[in-house]
Amino acid sequence: SVLLYIQVNISVPLYRCCPGEHLCPPLQSVVQVNFFCDYEESKGNYLVDVDGNRMLDVYTQIASIPIGYNHPALTKVMTDPKNMGTFVNRPALGMMPPEQFSEKLVNGLMAVAPKGFSRVQTMACGSCSNENAYKAIFIWYRVRAGVLSFFFQVPGCPDLTLLSFMGGFHGRTLGCLATTHTKAIQKLDVPSFDWPIAPFPQLRYPLDQFERENAREEARCLEEAEDLIVKWNQKGRHVAGVVIEPIQAEGGDNHASFDFYRKLRGITKKHGCAFLVDEVQTGGGSTGKFWAHAHWGLDDPADIVSFSKKMLTGGYYQKDSFQPDKPFRIFNTWLGDHTKNLLLTEVIKVIKTENLLDQAKRSGKVMLEGLYDLQDKYPHLLSKARGIGTFCAIDVKDEDTRNLLLLKARNKGVVLGGCGTQSIRFRPALVFKEHHAHLFLDIFNDAIAEL
Amino acid sequence: SVLLYIQVNISVPLYRCCPGEHLCPPLQSVVQVNFFCDYEESKGNYLVDVDGNRMLDVYTQIASIPIGYNHPALTKVMTDPKNMGTFVNRPALGMMPPEQFSEKLVNGLMAVAPKGFSRVQTMACGSCSNENAYKAIFIWYRVRAGVLSFFFQVPGCPDLTLLSFMGGFHGRTLGCLATTHTKAIQKLDVPSFDWPIAPFPQLRYPLDQFERENAREEARCLEEAEDLIVKWNQKGRHVAGVVIEPIQAEGGDNHASFDFYRKLRGITKKHGCAFLVDEVQTGGGSTGKFWAHAHWGLDDPADIVSFSKKMLTGGYYQKDSFQPDKPFRIFNTWLGDHTKNLLLTEVIKVIKTENLLDQAKRSGKVMLEGLYDLQDKYPHLLSKARGIGTFCAIDVKDEDTRNLLLLKARNKGVVLGGCGTQSIRFRPALVFKEHHAHLFLDIFNDAIAEL
Ligand code: FES
Repeated sequence: SVLLYIQVNISVPLYRCCPGEHLCPPLQSVVQVNFFCDYEESKGNYLVDVDGNRMLDVYTQIASIPIGYNHPALTKVMTDPKNMGTFVNRPALGMMPPEQFSEKLVNGLMAVAPKGFSRVQTMACGSCSNENAYKAIFIWYRVRAGVLSFFFQVPGCPDLTLLSFMGGFHGRTLGCLATTHTKAIQKLDVPSFDWPIAPFPQLRYPLDQFERENAREEARCLEEAEDLIVKWNQKGRHVAGVVIEPIQAEGGDNHASFDFYRKLRGITKKHGCAFLVDEVQTGGGSTGKFWAHAHWGLDDPADIVSFSKKMLTGGYYQKDSFQPDKPFRIFNTWLGDHTKNLLLTEVIKVIKTENLLDQAKRSGKVMLEGLYDLQDKYPHLLSKARGIGTFCAIDVKDEDTRNLLLLKARNKGVVLGGCGTQSIRFRPALVFKEHHAHLFLDIFNDAIAEL
Repeated sequence: SVLLYIQVNISVPLYRCCPGEHLCPPLQSVVQVNFFCDYEESKGNYLVDVDGNRMLDVYTQIASIPIGYNHPALTKVMTDPKNMGTFVNRPALGMMPPEQFSEKLVNGLMAVAPKGFSRVQTMACGSCSNENAYKAIFIWYRVRAGVLSFFFQVPGCPDLTLLSFMGGFHGRTLGCLATTHTKAIQKLDVPSFDWPIAPFPQLRYPLDQFERENAREEARCLEEAEDLIVKWNQKGRHVAGVVIEPIQAEGGDNHASFDFYRKLRGITKKHGCAFLVDEVQTGGGSTGKFWAHAHWGLDDPADIVSFSKKMLTGGYYQKDSFQPDKPFRIFNTWLGDHTKNLLLTEVIKVIKTENLLDQAKRSGKVMLEGLYDLQDKYPHLLSKARGIGTFCAIDVKDEDTRNLLLLKARNKGVVLGGCGTQSIRFRPALVFKEHHAHLFLDIFNDAIAEL
């Protein structure tokens, strides 16, 4: 661990370092902690940069490395000659799937399917997962409406909408972007859909000290969401679905109570809206359950659950009724990447055999308690320590200080990422153990002490 | 080649064959030539199904296999231990690229950059390539407008539009889908943007017999496109860009003359619209040039060129001025998949050392001449043989007959795909040689004879 305390030197200039210069944008702020990495040398929780600096990674490629770098189980998949055909030839999965496709789905995605889901549609990233989930919702809404009541009389392009929440993030392609409301710069200049946006609860922390205020705030948001659904339905721009994250991640690790989600689910049922839970960042085990929405304790928590990042492949689970009525309505050339299904199957095996969900609970406990201690120690700098499992965050007094802290932590050998305006999010891999949490807290403490 | 004439037995039922049943939709029409494949056993131009049937593949996973199945150059990349870190750990390329990232871009994508392009942005599929190209266009238009004239006074969501063409296909995510106009079922029930759509020339074949009519038709379409730009600009819904394929592929292999494209490029310049050439299906060499738009012979053919499929990675080349003014405006977690960059670098080497562009020209000549012969022989069944390089197509008298012919060809050992309402498209890999073309023509002839 002494090794970690070296200064990290960024030796690769980020201006015009390659012909694709735009991929290495000039460092406009220290938030953009860009450096080049040596992925061969990285291992477990440690990311190694091109200068050989070994850093504890508590950001994991924006929360997308499930079981650490170069896990032997994954290396084994890659070197197994019988997988070569999959890696070298990418099939059009919707038309000519490989022999082992079904088996890999059964032992992979379906082995961790959320309660109540017997279908999964693979996609290639978080954006196409949500884009296609939105389409599945629109199709479902119209097909059902056609069957039930013929209340849509106009053929062609319907005036359906999706309700999303302030501070939510669901991707950056044009459909997803219409439901993403984090930073203004992400939406600036890009045409969008006029769809309803509900407020997301702004809770006060620590949660147990502000129970009454927070309950009131959540009730206000639920009422507003229901009002919007009613109003938009009345004006003929029906709300086909509601999309939400179990924890608003990019938006600043904004939590709402499990009760809030349970009531929101009730509202969607009451008004016949599909309920899409976006688990792109929360899914995969870091909250201590495989899916963050499992904490709500509902028997019928969602109609569609989308995923990507730590799941390696993108895609979504869906209720049977969301299967389009005709083929080719949800389709594209690749429909995912079978390479990722192969790797995911091994990841899931490792999570099970190594009990990594329990590990996330234990490491998360150490982290969160440590963060509470730190905010007690530095109340002028830190606040709102929060989290479930290792999916934790803390707020820093302002954006500039947050950015400085990220840089200081990195220089001391810990890779972190920001979210929201002034939060730091912690996104270790599932192999992050208690001693890693202690090490992280020590270094983080040292970094804060320097502010 | 005798081996090829066996009957193909589809032994895997496509109903409820796996928990992800939706991935194996019921065969509603014979167009959906679904079967399970043995990708380990497939080789070069031959795709092997799970029953061991070896078929000449003239469809190549919807035009996405560049140099045939299991090319030794690609197998070598996959088994090279020094690439293991890349395959096992997927980086967030925009933040923490791997050491060899720049080098792979220089020897990969930039080694085949279209004339006049010095920048490339990697993405992961055709849809996100176009979605982000659209965003880059909107940002460019507004930033330039702001600098030049301040004629946009309203902040926030602008009312910009993109002009696309009837019969064009640019993807199925919501932004792309607004510019896709092939089959009604693809757009049904999905909210869209109200953007201008110009007619695409409906040429008569053979082209040399209808020069005057075709020139008139192209002039009509160009005039209509220009009118739309003027009209939409006047009503304040400015046309920021024009998006078009060099050959409308999904829409039915619809060609327009090189002159049409040259004039369209002129119109975009005259009205200050960005010109986005979508080479997702046409790019990668099958027209005999690496990029189909290179046939136009222009010095400044486009502002953005998007690609995917045979390029293995998605992405787009862009003029310097299309680089967003601020970081994180074009961004997502993975920004492509470096695994694919590694494979592409080898693909490009093979294309160069084996002179595969010339090969495509030679094989394409055999194919097209053979198709001309077949349509002379079966004038009641076939028409409109057309193509550049091996990027060929032919029309069948009606949709049902086309679908039957696809099935018969497959049963005789040739995998083909349809496009448009009644066309068959030919999309062999670049390793498709003259003798493969002859073999294909023989089998295709036999299949037609059975109709
Ligand atoms: S949109 Fe998901 S990979 Fe392209």
